Amino acid sequence: MNVLIVYAHPEPRSLNGSLKDFSVRRLQDAGHTVQVSDLYAMRWKAAFDGDDQLDRPADARFDPVLDSKRAYAGGSQSADIAAEQDKLRWADAVILQFPLWWFTMPAILKGWIDRVYAYGFGYGVGEHSDVRWGDRYGEGTLAGKRAMLVVTTGGWESHYSARGVNGPIDDVLFPIQHGVLYYPGFEVLPPFVVYRTSRVDERRYETVRDALGERLDALWTTPPIPFRRQNGGAYEIPALTLKPEIAPERVGFAAHLE
Amino acid sequence: MNVLIVYAHPEPRSLNGSLKDFSVRRLQDAGHTVQVSDLYAMRWKAAFDGDDQLDRPADARFDPVLDSKRAYAGGSQSADIAAEQDKLRWADAVILQFPLWWFTMPAILKGWIDRVYAYGFGYGVGEHSDVRWGDRYGEGTLAGKRAMLVVTTGGWESHYSARGVNGPIDDVLFPIQHGVLYYPGFEVLPPFVVYRTSRVDERRYETVRDALGERLDALWTTPPIPFRRQNGGAYEIPALTLKPEIAPERVGFAAHLE
Repeated sequence: MNVLIVYAHPEPRSLNGSLKDFSVRRLQDAGHTVQVSDLYAMRWKAAFDGDDQLDRPADARFDPVLDSKRAYAGGSQSADIAAEQDKLRWADAVILQFPLWWFTMPAILKGWIDRVYAYGFGYGVGEHSDVRWGDRYGEGTLAGKRAMLVVTTGGWESHYSARGVNGPIDDVLFPIQHGVLYYPGFEVLPPFVVYRTSRVDERRYETVRDALGERLDALWTTPPIPFRRQNGGAYEIPALTLKPEIAPERVGFAAHLE
Repeated sequence: MNVLIVYAHPEPRSLNGSLKDFSVRRLQDAGHTVQVSDLYAMRWKAAFDGDDQLDRPADARFDPVLDSKRAYAGGSQSADIAAEQDKLRWADAVILQFPLWWFTMPAILKGWIDRVYAYGFGYGVGEHSDVRWGDRYGEGTLAGKRAMLVVTTGGWESHYSARGVNGPIDDVLFPIQHGVLYYPGFEVLPPFVVYRTSRVDERRYETVRDALGERLDALWTTPPIPFRRQNGGAYEIPALTLKPEIAPERVGFAAHLE
């Protein structure tokens, strides 16, 4: 199978760098083909703007949605964006690996999402009608592929527990796992999270590495997070609220799990 | 009073651009002094890396935490970072204005947080002991200042309601409002959110603008979101979980509201 690792850490000689190198080897040893988008090494352009469409007059008003749509449809996207879209089409599974900075991904990775998820590719896909509201949240360009987060954080596991001060890790990651990965169609596996990274000595590193290895071995067998399909009957359309009879007592992120 | 607007939209002739210009005028007309950090116009560097410390040997291993700490303490930060920290010290209130892209801020604004919130300034402040776990979540460098998000989104309000498919807007914004703003000490006001931005005609623009004007007029009188202070007695230290007797039935983001 084909695996794309999108990796965002500025220092190769870091815990993240070691885990990324380990993942590449582990996947290759299992017979998979691996590509890595090492965003810092690529000096990835983070800010989405009017320079990302090669056909736009310099003085034209930039519309993030309409310019993205035209450039994607007409093949006038910046080459770095098109190359990443090709990698996503090629991949059977995608791993986003990053340190949790301020409770979400580093800017350089956010800029990969902002730019690569073009209108017609990452969103704006499919029909909008009385029974469907686009191909999204379980359908879309990337349907049939699997995705997983590999995340490191300096915080303690308890800080990210159900009543921890940072909020539960599943809720902290929901905007990424549901909003960025499930939205264009990925099946999303439970995340692999390393806590308290300032206290990783050699012995703990081996434990972490082995646990990650097991997750990589199970990339095609781990049950995905059971997010509800938007067009599967649970939601009113176009309000996109859960129908009254669906988990009537639940609100918030967790209500979108079957 | 002094107001800093940190603004992240690539097109001045946009809804966001108009609302930003309006905010500057409204605040100035009320007698306030306003500075704008227009991140796209400034060509703000988004990716936090080893170039952000002016004293680091080029071949040294980059540690995001330790290098940030040393550069902040020793005055060897990149000048653009130090200038934004000065603006934050100067401000009595800070507005972050941005379009919601993939359920969070655009990469360029995330990169402002990643880089400006240095160790010793945005985090790593105060003592860690049996009764305190740093000056954070209600205490810190920016305590005594107010902050507010001004956010636009193409989605409908119902999509961001309690049972809407995107998740409730308060939960979507929690990692920013609690994790980015409350963490270093800001009092955080309820957000000003404009939904369904593709349908803003002249008449609706006037309604939106007037509503924003009222929020700006009330910048110093609006009650902040009642997040719980980390060191105020509600949390176990160092686990940072809510004590059993505090809202015992609640879990998740909402448990951190008084």
